[in-house]
Amino acid sequence: MKLVNLLPWLSLVGAALCQTAWTLSLKLLRWSDLTTPQWPSAVGPLLGYIGFGIVNTILLAVAMRTITLTTTFAVWTALTLAFIKCVDVIWLQAGWSWTELAFLLLIAIGIVGLKVAAP
Amino acid sequence: MKLVNLLPWLSLVGAALCQTAWTLSLKLLRWSDLTTPQWPSAVGPLLGYIGFGIVNTILLAVAMRTITLTTTFAVWTALTLAFIKCVDVIWLQAGWSWTELAFLLLIAIGIVGLKVAAP
Repeated sequence: MKLVNLLPWLSLVGAALCQTAWTLSLKLLRWSDLTTPQWPSAVGPLLGYIGFGIVNTILLAVAMRTITLTTTFAVWTALTLAFIKCVDVIWLQAGWSWTELAFLLLIAIGIVGLKVAAP
Repeated sequence: MKLVNLLPWLSLVGAALCQTAWTLSLKLLRWSDLTTPQWPSAVGPLLGYIGFGIVNTILLAVAMRTITLTTTFAVWTALTLAFIKCVDVIWLQAGWSWTELAFLLLIAIGIVGLKVAAP
């Protein structure tokens, strides 16, 4: 496979990574910190929130130009979910269970299915 | 169940409703109208776009503080998609199919399951 064919897919993976980082920034963001003397600690997440949001949109737009809209959205959502779950478990020490994973899979199938079945 | 336990989930549903209203505002928005003598007709959607976007982010941040990142993202995406589908069918007279309904049901089962299985 040529590199040029791979580019939209790499953009798609990059977009999903950005969306993961964007979600994480939102979680780490403390709006109240922005008005206190400790405000510098809130600037990192705020910049991440804005920056990852913009890069995410750009990469997604690049991917959409070549890959169909449905596929782009489905893969982007599914990848983001998977990445976020990894962050949750590895970094934020959240627990996981097979039950939870099964229900997440149901939601993922529903999201992707709904997008694919759309007329 | 105490109200305090329900609050993050209510925020999550509210965030999804805002995201739906935000998407709808974007659909109704005519950027070109903003530079014509008919610009007042474009102000409503523009205000909705900005307002719902902000409230959406705040409610999402509130939900994330209690619910795990993965669950928040999955439920938010899925609910938004379901709400938009409802708006499409009821308001914008779009068609619907049993296939779509089946996928919506999968999403619903997944969300309820996650809520029940949540630690």
